[in-house]
Amino acid sequence: MISVDKALAELFALVQPTAHETIPLLAASGRVLASDVTARRDQPPFPASAMDGYALIAEEADLHAQFKVIGESAAGHGFAGKVKPGQAVRIFTGAPLPQGASRVVIQEDVERRGDLITITDAQTGGTNIRPQGDDFKAGDGIRAPRVIGPADLALMAAMNIAHVPVHRKPVVALISTGDELVMPGEMPGRDQIIASNSFGIHAMLAAWGAEPRLLPIARDNRASLETAFRLAKGADLVVTIGGASVGDHDIVGDVAETMGLDRAFYKIAIRPGKPLMAGRMGDAAMVGLPGNPVSAMVCARVFLAPMIRAMLGMGADRAAERMAVLTHDLAANGPREHYQRARVENGRITVAGRQDSALLSVLADANALAVSAPNADAQPAGTEIRYISF
Amino acid sequence: MISVDKALAELFALVQPTAHETIPLLAASGRVLASDVTARRDQPPFPASAMDGYALIAEEADLHAQFKVIGESAAGHGFAGKVKPGQAVRIFTGAPLPQGASRVVIQEDVERRGDLITITDAQTGGTNIRPQGDDFKAGDGIRAPRVIGPADLALMAAMNIAHVPVHRKPVVALISTGDELVMPGEMPGRDQIIASNSFGIHAMLAAWGAEPRLLPIARDNRASLETAFRLAKGADLVVTIGGASVGDHDIVGDVAETMGLDRAFYKIAIRPGKPLMAGRMGDAAMVGLPGNPVSAMVCARVFLAPMIRAMLGMGADRAAERMAVLTHDLAANGPREHYQRARVENGRITVAGRQDSALLSVLADANALAVSAPNADAQPAGTEIRYISF
Repeated sequence: MISVDKALAELFALVQPTAHETIPLLAASGRVLASDVTARRDQPPFPASAMDGYALIAEEADLHAQFKVIGESAAGHGFAGKVKPGQAVRIFTGAPLPQGASRVVIQEDVERRGDLITITDAQTGGTNIRPQGDDFKAGDGIRAPRVIGPADLALMAAMNIAHVPVHRKPVVALISTGDELVMPGEMPGRDQIIASNSFGIHAMLAAWGAEPRLLPIARDNRASLETAFRLAKGADLVVTIGGASVGDHDIVGDVAETMGLDRAFYKIAIRPGKPLMAGRMGDAAMVGLPGNPVSAMVCARVFLAPMIRAMLGMGADRAAERMAVLTHDLAANGPREHYQRARVENGRITVAGRQDSALLSVLADANALAVSAPNADAQPAGTEIRYISF
Repeated sequence: MISVDKALAELFALVQPTAHETIPLLAASGRVLASDVTARRDQPPFPASAMDGYALIAEEADLHAQFKVIGESAAGHGFAGKVKPGQAVRIFTGAPLPQGASRVVIQEDVERRGDLITITDAQTGGTNIRPQGDDFKAGDGIRAPRVIGPADLALMAAMNIAHVPVHRKPVVALISTGDELVMPGEMPGRDQIIASNSFGIHAMLAAWGAEPRLLPIARDNRASLETAFRLAKGADLVVTIGGASVGDHDIVGDVAETMGLDRAFYKIAIRPGKPLMAGRMGDAAMVGLPGNPVSAMVCARVFLAPMIRAMLGMGADRAAERMAVLTHDLAANGPREHYQRARVENGRITVAGRQDSALLSVLADANALAVSAPNADAQPAGTEIRYISF
């Protein structure tokens, strides 16, 4: 058996970052920035008022001083002239500061009569002016790689970046295998069950930034499997579910090998899971997940998610771990790295009582997988342990 | 001024849950389940083997006992006959247990010669059989409302639920207003800036489960605003950005009122933010956000996100708060509820040094908003404080 880290290293060797493509900013939410972008301008692009009020010369802003209002500066419509001694310009939040002015007195601090204003409160605080480039300057950058979030979108918009270089979404073909499977909505035979993992893994792949393609169920015979692999053509990654152990009925690997798979079997020290088939198959990477419902979903989280991240140019790392405090005692672990379904609430983690890897109902209640190192000691309640989100 | 909670109550009164629609399971990821669904069958649908091995009569499973292998039960292809004393059936993981059998001896515990097997290890543990309905039983349900996650999708698939009742995505029309704005990619005039909030809020709305529609920028004149409001027709919620305070140039509310808005202004005790315009406008709810870049994004998170949740049938609650430990001292708060940009890492929260509400660059580095109650005392480093994700 090999460790989870060793297995991940083998899997990372099968993939590479996808090509760059340039897309409109509005479509870039959740995508991975592929190369640095830089601001095309300062923000604000001019010294701007931070408040509604009157722009004037700072040195003149004494209590009871009077000024003549000579014009107005509104957002989008600055004042063209220059403010001279004894003069003020009506100004609104975000509007350009007129030439000559060096302070904005907020409207609550003046009394206005016709074209005249009088300062009614002593001016003590800041100037209420945002300097040019206060937020960012032309040439300031956003570094790649980075998952583009809502605030990044707003920032790039403000930087006048209308198109964004991102990594192409890796296309993942998803093949469930087995004579026992039918699709949801079909009538299963007496000995059949409904394909389920593929639906869960499809949703996870999409959430991780891949473009999943669910292919028809492949039956346990050569012709059906060959058809499925042919339909997977063009994918960056081909994932089979089931038939990846070494049982008498597991012909997935055999067929994949005749179709060009450079096959390796990894017996991985992981629970749930263990056997994983992987290799290069033409232009694609190929991974065979176990067919057991929960094993498939957990192995997808532990192995496929980091592969997708690597394909998105985010580096080759195991799934990001966080810490939470155990609400109960946790038994010692056996020789395999153990991923147990758990619920994390407000920094506290409760591991589910039943860890049978066939129980989807337990999985649906989980939002985390507690991670136990091989041969880890028992942990008392109150200990901080590692987990990954699920 | 009214409290954030009072303002939210006013906003919740403007909306109602959207209608139900039924969609294919594969499209249901991230959608909100609108009514309970129930399993159409047991899982497993028959007593099933948990291992690869031999099915036989439990009472006969003594060390050195011999059995004749009379057939095979594979996934999808059960054994049609009955296991009698002295007989065994070759069986694979997930396959139906044959009639008469009451234990599976794993293949590692037998020696096979032709049609004969001999038990080579004493049988002490469980029977290696998953009882029918061990995961769930026909009629077991998933309760609405619930955001449908990957494991829910897998569980519903296993339950043979091919179509799912969900709440229709609320359509949100997004209108940026202001003569100072141009779209990213356009050449701004001397006094202009690039529309940015609308891009960030568009991405947030989509992430919250709404269907955002970005409309063209509306200018600060009646004709342009009327055109924008007309384009918003059909939306469940119309959101304007900018022009929602009560300055001389804020004609958004005036125009909306002539087009049927039952207008209210809320001066809310919140930082950043404060003025919010809201009301019913024909068939839609309408909210006017402040135009300041950061205020708009924060008010969207604090007010719009809970409104979208309510429209998705998830109840009327303020944004879910979590707790994290301060890495530094935090100053006392003023009279308004304060949402400060912050970073949370592993349960520890660091509030950004610059909270100027014009700084998008600070916002893009934040992943949380620290929440301070009105007039909250100063908090020393090490205190647990509230935050919302951002």
